[in-house]
Formats: sequence, C-alpha cells, structure tokens
Amino acid sequence: MHRFRQAVSNVMANVATIQHSGINREKTTEGDPEKEEKYEYSRAEFLQLSSEEVAIATDIIIRPIMVPRDLSKLPWYSGYAEVVNAGKSKLNEDQAAARHMFINNKHSLEKTLDTSPGNGLLIKDSDQIPLTYFAIFDGHAGSGVSVMASRVLHTRILAKLESVYDLLANSSIEQRQFTRSGDQRPNKWPFTEKEMSVESLVVGALESAFVEMDEQVRKEKLDYHIPGGCTVLVAIFLLGKLYVANAGDSRAIICRENEVLPMSTDFTPLSERQRLQMVASTNPQLLGSEFCCLEFQKRVQRKDLGKKLMYRDQNMTGWAYKEVTEEDIKFPLIYGEGKKARVLATIGVTRGFGDHELKVHGTDVYIKPFLSPVPEVKVYNLFDRDNSEDDVLIMASDGLWDVLSNDRVAEVVSEVLKSFPPNDYKKYASAAQELIMAARGVLRLNGWRTLKENKSGSGDDITVFVIPLNKHTSMDRQSSMTESHDASPMSS
Amino acid sequence: MHRFRQAVSNVMANVATIQHSGINREKTTEGDPEKEEKYEYSRAEFLQLSSEEVAIATDIIIRPIMVPRDLSKLPWYSGYAEVVNAGKSKLNEDQAAARHMFINNKHSLEKTLDTSPGNGLLIKDSDQIPLTYFAIFDGHAGSGVSVMASRVLHTRILAKLESVYDLLANSSIEQRQFTRSGDQRPNKWPFTEKEMSVESLVVGALESAFVEMDEQVRKEKLDYHIPGGCTVLVAIFLLGKLYVANAGDSRAIICRENEVLPMSTDFTPLSERQRLQMVASTNPQLLGSEFCCLEFQKRVQRKDLGKKLMYRDQNMTGWAYKEVTEEDIKFPLIYGEGKKARVLATIGVTRGFGDHELKVHGTDVYIKPFLSPVPEVKVYNLFDRDNSEDDVLIMASDGLWDVLSNDRVAEVVSEVLKSFPPNDYKKYASAAQELIMAARGVLRLNGWRTLKENKSGSGDDITVFVIPLNKHTSMDRQSSMTESHDASPMSS
Repeated sequence: MHRFRQAVSNVMANVATIQHSGINREKTTEGDPEKEEKYEYSRAEFLQLSSEEVAIATDIIIRPIMVPRDLSKLPWYSGYAEVVNAGKSKLNEDQAAARHMFINNKHSLEKTLDTSPGNGLLIKDSDQIPLTYFAIFDGHAGSGVSVMASRVLHTRILAKLESVYDLLANSSIEQRQFTRSGDQRPNKWPFTEKEMSVESLVVGALESAFVEMDEQVRKEKLDYHIPGGCTVLVAIFLLGKLYVANAGDSRAIICRENEVLPMSTDFTPLSERQRLQMVASTNPQLLGSEFCCLEFQKRVQRKDLGKKLMYRDQNMTGWAYKEVTEEDIKFPLIYGEGKKARVLATIGVTRGFGDHELKVHGTDVYIKPFLSPVPEVKVYNLFDRDNSEDDVLIMASDGLWDVLSNDRVAEVVSEVLKSFPPNDYKKYASAAQELIMAARGVLRLNGWRTLKENKSGSGDDITVFVIPLNKHTSMDRQSSMTESHDASPMSS
Repeated sequence: MHRFRQAVSNVMANVATIQHSGINREKTTEGDPEKEEKYEYSRAEFLQLSSEEVAIATDIIIRPIMVPRDLSKLPWYSGYAEVVNAGKSKLNEDQAAARHMFINNKHSLEKTLDTSPGNGLLIKDSDQIPLTYFAIFDGHAGSGVSVMASRVLHTRILAKLESVYDLLANSSIEQRQFTRSGDQRPNKWPFTEKEMSVESLVVGALESAFVEMDEQVRKEKLDYHIPGGCTVLVAIFLLGKLYVANAGDSRAIICRENEVLPMSTDFTPLSERQRLQMVASTNPQLLGSEFCCLEFQKRVQRKDLGKKLMYRDQNMTGWAYKEVTEEDIKFPLIYGEGKKARVLATIGVTRGFGDHELKVHGTDVYIKPFLSPVPEVKVYNLFDRDNSEDDVLIMASDGLWDVLSNDRVAEVVSEVLKSFPPNDYKKYASAAQELIMAARGVLRLNGWRTLKENKSGSGDDITVFVIPLNKHTSMDRQSSMTESHDASPMSS
C-alpha cells in the first residue's frame, strides 16, 4: 500500500510537467524491447519521406510543419499537415493514413451478375464499389500501436465490407436512404439481411472492424515489440455518405458555409465517467484494493470520515450527499481536472487500441478493462445538398483542439480557402498547414506561442486533414452508379 | 432443459393472447400470499372513492372513466382521468399521486436565517420551499408495488431535497439558471457544495430517491405481501423549473402552442437493448445456461449452425455477419417485436421498482439484475417564456400512447382546452377525460373500438394527468420569491 501511494504521488508529480501527455508512466514499462519489432517506425506513406527526412520531421526543437511533397498522393488533393511535439516523446506518436480503395466482389470469378432490367442491380460496369478512407491515430506510451493501426486497420474495414459486398452492391435506393436514427433495426423482426439498410451494414462493419483490430493488437503484442496504445479517428466516403468513426479524443467537424457540424464526440475520462464507473461497479475487483469507484466533490481525506460530501455514482448525473466511509478514502477511479484527468491515476484516454499490458504503476491493477475500442459512428449524407468546393471535413488529433475552438478552426480554414482562386487544388494543403501554424505557433523566449493571441501554443503532436466534401459525389457521378443517384437523390 | 423449453413455449403462447400485459407469468408466482399485506389496495387519494366506488372503478366490463369528484383536490385543478383494463388483470394496476408539498428547513428552530441585504438569501418570509408533485405508477404482476410507491415515493424525494435545503434556499440566481447540459459538474474541481447548481441537486435528489425507494421495496417484500413491480413517471415543479423523472414506458410531453416537446424517453426491451446486453455480457452467469446475449436477425435454429447470420452485440448499433455457433442457439435475451418484446422471455418493462423475486418460469434465472430503478431526468425552464393557460404537461401510462401518437394527444387536448372560456378551471379535467375516451374508445360487438378511426382501443389500464404550466410560476410570483424571479428571468 505504501509503495502504491508513492507511485501515485510520482504519477501526480508528472501530471504537472507533462501537460499534454495522454499517459503517465515510466519509459521502462513500454513493452519488452527484447521482442522483435514488426512495424518499423515511419511517417505516413503519402508523405514519401526518406529516413533522413523522418529524422527532420521528428525534430522536437525545430518542429517543422510537414506537408506531402506531391499533393496528388492524397485522395482528392486533400490537405494534410503534421508537426511533432515539443519534447514530451522522442518521436511523433501521431500516425495517419489516406487512400482510395475498392470493395471487391470476392465471388466475381465464380458468379455471373444478373444484369437483367429491373432487378435493382446498381453495379453494372464494374464489380468494385469505390471507398475513400482517411484515418488519424494518436499514439501514447510509444508509437508501436499507432504505426500498426495505420498500416492494418483499413484492410480490416475493407474485409468487413467485402463480407457484405452482395448486400451493398444490390441495395435498393430505399436501403441507401439516410436515416439519422441511432439504432437501426428494420421495423419488423425477424428479417432477412436483404432488408437491412446500407447504413446499418457500414456502421456494423466499422464497429466490428475496430473491435477485431484491437484483438489483433493484443495477439501481436504477445510475440512482437508493439508498445503503447492509440486513439482512432476514421472517415470513409462510401455510396454517397460520409461515415466518421471515433474512438478517442481526436475530433472531426464539417465546416460548410457559416456552419460547423460536429462529426464526433471527444471520449475522455470526464466525458466517459458513467461508463467507467459502470465497469468498476460491475466488477469491483478490477479496482484492486487501491481505488474507489465514486466521484466526490473533492479528494476524500481520512479527516472526512463520517462527514457528508457530495458524490455521484454510475447511475447519477446530478449530485447528492453521502456520509463518507472507510471505502471512500481510497484513490478515486477518475482524478484530475480537464486535460489532466486520469483513469486509475494512469491514462488520459479511454477509447482506442492497445494498452493491453498496461498496469497501474507498482500494482497488479490492469487499465485495459476500462478502455474501449468501440467507435461512435456518425453519418452525413453527401447528397443532402450541393456541397461547394469550400465545404470540408476537418479531422485532427487533440493537439489541435486543445488550443483552437471549433469556430476558430472553421475561421482559419475559411479564410485560407477563400484566398485561393476556384478549382485551385492546393487550397486544402494550405489550409491544413495554416491550422498547424495557428495551433503550434512560433518559438519565442517563453516557448511556443500562438501568433494571434500570444497564448501557449500546443506542445503536443498535431495531425490535420482538410478534406473536400464535393469530390466523392462528383467522382460517383462519373462512375457507373450515376443513373441511380441522379434519378433520386439520397436525402430522405 | 426440456422443462425450460416447455416453459418458454408456454410463455410464448401467452404473448399472443395477453397483448398489453407488461409481464408473462403465472398468477401463482405473485409473491407469498401468506405474508401480511402492508399497503391496502385503493385508488388515488384525490379521487376520494369509497370501497364500493373502488369496485365500480375497477369493473373490467363497463370500464368507467373515473375523474375526481372534487377538482380542487388536485394541485392547480389539474386534469386527471383513469380507466381500468379490459380484463388482463382483476384490478387497475396503475396508481397515481399528486400533491403540493413543502421542503422544510429541518434546522429552522436552531438557526436564525441571515436576511441582511445583499447576502443572496432568497427565502425571506418563510422557511419553506414549495414543491408540486405528480406521479404515475404502472404496475404489473400485481398492484402491490404500484400502491406502495404511490404512498411512499414522494416522502423519499422530499427527504432527499430536505437534506440539501440550505443549498436550495441560499442558491444564487446564477445557480438557479437553466443549463440543459446532461452532465452537470462545476467547471473546476474540487469544489464546495455551495458552488453546485440547483439543477444538479434536484436531479441528484430524484436519482438517489428512486434507487433508495427500490431498495425499500426489496426490504419490505421480505416481510410483507407486496407482489409485482411498477414503472415510475414523476413530475415536480420546483424553483421555477419542471423536472420529469422517468423509469419505464409511461410518457410525458409538453403541449404548447403548435408544438410538442417530449419530456421522457420510453424505456423498453428494444430501446434498452445495449444496456441489457451489457449487463449480460459483463456477467454471463446471469443468463443461466438458457439464454444468449447476442441479437440476431431471426430466431437461431440448430439448422443454422455454421451459417452466417446478421447479429449485434452490446457494442454495436449497426449489423455484421457472424458464423453461428452452438452458444448462439440458446433463447435470445430479448425476444419479440414491438410491444411484445420481452427480456428473458418474461418481462416487457426494463425500468421501475420491484420484481425482486421474479424468476424466469421454471428456472433459477432472476430478472431483477436486468431491471433498473434509475430515472432519466429532463428539465424544462418554466420562466423561458410566458406560458399560457393552455400550455400543459401531459403524463400518461403506456395504455394511452399505445393507441394515440404524441401529435394526436396534443390535438385532442388542444381542441378541448380551446372549447372552454378563459380561466375555466374545469378544462383540464375535461381534456384528461377526453384523452381516455379517445384511447379506450367504446364497446362494440368486436370489442373496444376508438371513435375516430374505429381501430382497436386500448385494453390496458390508462392513467392521464393534464397539468397547466402557468400555475407554478404565477404561484411563485405571489410568494416571497417574487423579487428575485422578476428581477432576472431564469432563462440563460
């Protein structure tokens, strides 16, 4: 117990210094370096960096803003920029991926598609359904898992979608409609898979791919050196809709004319309080003998025994009085304010991949049962209006949002995009670069300061995508699926 | 196992016949009739019925619509009406309660209130904070718990509010503001209870009172004959706000000029699928060896072994394929469509009080771990506009909503209220009566039929309140709290 107290106070001391770190733990616990490395560290493929350039990109003194040298390597000339942190880790632990892909008909060789008139078949000239994929992985306690996820996750999502290829390819206009309902179940039950909406199938593919990806991380960690964990933010453009799947505290927003639409929820120890308390109250042994599940108005001390303090349990959103008992004097499950809040005094993120081996320092209390790989998926209908070329999806790791509000981000992007002539494909890259500049700021005697307000700039790794919303649908219009979309727009 | 199969098929047969019953089980399991009855059956106090009249009120052939003979017995001449079911149980298992109450300063004798200018103290002439309470309890498998809750719950809520009397009485205008935020925690932590919003305190009082009430039911069931369980819908008017706390499938809506605002969520086996699956997946032993936690597109048969079927687990809102294994052939945790959906083939409601002794027929599988007494609390600011005398809160048990949509209910009520001259206090009682009439319909050769559409009328117990929204604030304006409210309306 004494040993544990010391560990916690060490951890608490770290909180003050490593403000932007997602995790509090000693470097020595980052997995077993004896094991072979399976996924070599690098930067995103589309950056096309040599190993010398990777070293420059991760220079924590200069902090250069990196953008792709060949903008055509990104789908639709989307904007991308990144910067390394100011010293909290040796490398940039953010990773990114972006690519056009195709959902293939696995049985296309064995099977002839029925293209007779009126059978509702929409794929005519090709067996392939186009899909465009973007992802940001924000690593912590090592870059192993973020690197692995950036190389593997899209293949798992694609495999899940290929398992429902027939249903997607043969879906009716009705099944492709936009529902905005959270829980998609056909009105009748039982039902056949052919009655299922496309949205249900894609959301289900993303949800199950995320969970299975995390299981793959667990397995590979047994044999290879894959330290740490990462948050996950994925956007896919598919069959006229944008799906944003988020597990962590990265964020996606849509900026369109004078409007900001949040496309994700930030999952943090504070926003996930009730879920975390639920896990702990259902299985109290997960807390060891060191932690207390309840939230109190303050850190409970021995001298509070028998007094009444305000508390909340997993069922409560409001507050009530509770008489403090011996049990309540333990260290709280969630401790700290704002960005410094930690689960089990250890970790500041609550969703994502990895961290399977992570324990509370000096104890046998595992963190993983409190973490979830499950994404929340939000859907946006790309056909519900004519998106202009300045309507964009912005995805970024928390390094950006710690310093800039949604509205400020929209403002920065809008200014850049407006300053370019129409159809200039470089505008998105420029906007992404400008966002990083606004969040990182410039190095002054008192550290990194933002240009506009001279506040503290972000010392975290920052990764940003700026993705035009009008390209997927115009691409589609040129494809074999033109007729159906033109005949009946998908807004319901 | 054979015995269980038979039980389930019996249960399934019942589903077809007892369409509106909240529960499927044999009468013989309704508690131990050897035990003493603690809460004698009656109808709501404000109806002032003799025991002969109670017998008439619960005549399942005539189904008379009951309204209070003395409308002044209800706060603000609110409308109330009820009707018994068409034969699914011997008695009307719905119960109701309504009353003005006061939150008292328990320490008022020992303590002098500081009324010096500028101290923010709002209660001047009186130590009492007025509170108006309405509640509907929809019982199942006996009326014991609904009767008990109608007599006891308000005292538990009052006790919880009295424990924070000082904080409520001394709250600043700022603390009384309307937040609409789900999770109310002061921005800084730690904090003192004096920094807490009134909303957080009232929501916390309701949440903890509901949980403790259910615990009291558990304890009293050990010694007394208190059969069954009940759903709970509570509305309280307090310090300029309306709080609606719901645990079950009763419903509250606000109808104001051309607008319907939902004030509750229906909690049912289908709407609570993920919570129920979470309970089961965290503690699989709760399912015995008979039930399967996953949801499939259809009832899984032995012949499906090895095939792929669409499924959802506790983490999924979308659907994906799964290869069927032996485990999946068990009876599903949630089975049935719409109103007929059941948890563990037994119960159709998922929140409320009671059911502690309830088991799946012929097994040792308890239902209670899947049920929750926790309410969802929604808050409405009564000062955000000038409510007219025709702006009302409508609360009703599911018997009403099974037959009438929110919009239809608003229409019926609006027609009645408009037909009365201004300030005629009888309008609310008339509206309530008209709602019951619209839902129950009239008895024809082919059973109870609605008047307007000649559809099947509700054969369930139906209970309705129609409560004017302008009375609490006008009452307040005449009270000692006038100045502060007039000086600064509470809308934020």
